[in-house]
Amino acid sequence: MDWEKRYAGRMGKVQPSPIMDLIRVMSQRPVINFASGLPDPAGFPVKALQEAAEQIFSEDWRAGLQYGEADGYRPLREWVAADLTSRGVPTETAQVLMVSGSQQGIDLVARAFIQPGDIVLTEEPSYLAALQVFASFEADVRPIRTDEGGLDPDAAAAALKQPGVKLLYAMPNHQNPSGTTLADDRRLILLKAAAAAGIPVLADEAYLHLRYDPGEPAPLAAADPEAPILTAGTFSKTIAPGLRVAWIAGPAPVINRLALLKQVTDLHANSFTQRMVHRYVSAGHLPGQVAHLRSAYREKRDVFLHALERRLAGKATWTRPAGGMFLLLRLPRGRSATALLSKALDEGVAYVPGGPFFPAGGGEETMRLNFVSPPLSDIDEGVTRLARAIR
Amino acid sequence: MDWEKRYAGRMGKVQPSPIMDLIRVMSQRPVINFASGLPDPAGFPVKALQEAAEQIFSEDWRAGLQYGEADGYRPLREWVAADLTSRGVPTETAQVLMVSGSQQGIDLVARAFIQPGDIVLTEEPSYLAALQVFASFEADVRPIRTDEGGLDPDAAAAALKQPGVKLLYAMPNHQNPSGTTLADDRRLILLKAAAAAGIPVLADEAYLHLRYDPGEPAPLAAADPEAPILTAGTFSKTIAPGLRVAWIAGPAPVINRLALLKQVTDLHANSFTQRMVHRYVSAGHLPGQVAHLRSAYREKRDVFLHALERRLAGKATWTRPAGGMFLLLRLPRGRSATALLSKALDEGVAYVPGGPFFPAGGGEETMRLNFVSPPLSDIDEGVTRLARAIR
Repeated sequence: MDWEKRYAGRMGKVQPSPIMDLIRVMSQRPVINFASGLPDPAGFPVKALQEAAEQIFSEDWRAGLQYGEADGYRPLREWVAADLTSRGVPTETAQVLMVSGSQQGIDLVARAFIQPGDIVLTEEPSYLAALQVFASFEADVRPIRTDEGGLDPDAAAAALKQPGVKLLYAMPNHQNPSGTTLADDRRLILLKAAAAAGIPVLADEAYLHLRYDPGEPAPLAAADPEAPILTAGTFSKTIAPGLRVAWIAGPAPVINRLALLKQVTDLHANSFTQRMVHRYVSAGHLPGQVAHLRSAYREKRDVFLHALERRLAGKATWTRPAGGMFLLLRLPRGRSATALLSKALDEGVAYVPGGPFFPAGGGEETMRLNFVSPPLSDIDEGVTRLARAIR
Repeated sequence: MDWEKRYAGRMGKVQPSPIMDLIRVMSQRPVINFASGLPDPAGFPVKALQEAAEQIFSEDWRAGLQYGEADGYRPLREWVAADLTSRGVPTETAQVLMVSGSQQGIDLVARAFIQPGDIVLTEEPSYLAALQVFASFEADVRPIRTDEGGLDPDAAAAALKQPGVKLLYAMPNHQNPSGTTLADDRRLILLKAAAAAGIPVLADEAYLHLRYDPGEPAPLAAADPEAPILTAGTFSKTIAPGLRVAWIAGPAPVINRLALLKQVTDLHANSFTQRMVHRYVSAGHLPGQVAHLRSAYREKRDVFLHALERRLAGKATWTRPAGGMFLLLRLPRGRSATALLSKALDEGVAYVPGGPFFPAGGGEETMRLNFVSPPLSDIDEGVTRLARAIR
């Protein structure tokens, strides 16, 4: 039987990602790896998670190994609601749905709202795997201009007024791939424009906590809790991604619809690892863990930026993220980061070409660099190798 | 903002399930509960899973807490491939994709193949949450007649020839809700008809291992490994559902496409619980665990059937499952299991009305009874109460 003829039309948009294949290949080469999308496993709080797992096995295995509620483990939903409330986003438990990674949160929102041909607005550049979700629902993805303060508010307001727009997707804090944060004075403008246009905003706050500059970052929703906004958050970057515990928050009726869709999709989030995360956070471990990660990642960022300054000043430009895991380096116009890659690999350093993060094309001269994943001691040498490749 | 107007058309088909709400409410009432969809937590192999978790924390936490491959944890995929091969379905590792529960396997297959208006053939009755998946992709679900030997092969062959058919979904072994198993002599006929019509079969083998009658059950795919078939399997019914570890197997190019879709959807299955399951099965625990479950569940089934015979002979009919978790009881024509429910609850027993399991309507006189979830000592009393309600 010819299976190829049997696929739904949407599968034409679900294609192998050259970048993902590249990341996989490069992760296995003995190079200094700035290409990874991963956090540093040295930051995983192994001992406290082990204690949490032991407690579940002794106290709560009947529920921890059993089917669970579609909307998630209630005590963890309560914790998320309280945490969001403390961050300026007043949230009830009924406004929180637990999901399997914030990727699934993005996917559920897209599945709930996007029909073929609908316009989805994004930052330029934007998170590649979110772009793939929107493409898989046959959306027309249109990027909005950004600068060092994130989305250009005038361009966003104009774009939101176009007919056919269904969703605006943004990473307001320390975004992937550039590390950029949406400036405070743009936040309310953006949310007011979305409200005026009647367009939901999906704020992906995956990197919210990873802040290295002074000041505590706020979720976009805190700028206007009345705005039409859904917030996706995760424990992947603060605790451990392999547990697949994340959440989406928004108006209760919308969360209720998304929970129905979640149930259709895979019944419910992992009973066991939701409880691990809940025991971890309710034991009070998270603030110390975040402080530890901030300290370790800040040092890596600073060393990285210093090395770039020393090795590549005048030969390239780059973002200076206040937080997150990535920065975006830009070669002089006309050069191609893809074309440069094999030379870089020969020098012994890997990165991800930035082009695929630009939904409307372009960005060939950019590359995404993960500054948290490599060991601190490798960073200067890796940047030196990168400079040799670029020169 | 009016969110209701913003949803995609498919959300019209994602509606609250009265049956799911009912199950939730009834699970909390102090009644003898035949309504549950859950396995008996007394069967969870707690100690061995605890050992598996401890081993991950001491030996493999770097990978067990980290992001993983979209197609799943390779050693577990290898184990599944070898296990399927030993059951008469020759399978390579590349033919196995790990998913978050077989519900997600069904959902991914539907998303890959179903466009609005496509016909999906199912058994009548069929698994409610699969029907909800197909509805969510706006399929036209058409049931095929069944009897005590499962799908009627002539009706299936005729249905497969209709234009617009995209998929046949079946639970060949101990299905939900009736417990029926597809007769051996119908299997090759069914698969040949599907191959002739060029229609993929999705075989949901969630209950494969829960066999109480003599003979080792075979996956449908074993009847013809060349057939156009995808097999969904799970560790939920043999180990523990809260771990959300399941798989889908089929032709390698199709599995590869489904893995891309899985990556878009939620990146990958749970790194930690996949490793728990792998350590559990590779320590050789599964055959003893399955034997233990078979023994415990067989006794419950026998007590249940004996109680039905004693209390309800002549007042109702019911299926006599060779395995699984459920049987379907049928009241005399003209009676309604939904109408009877409040009376049953007053008597102190709960069940699920069977109507929603019939995709084309009908089945009002049926109810689904879970015979594995209640304690053994409650079964006769529960059936006695049910008989009082029916009388």
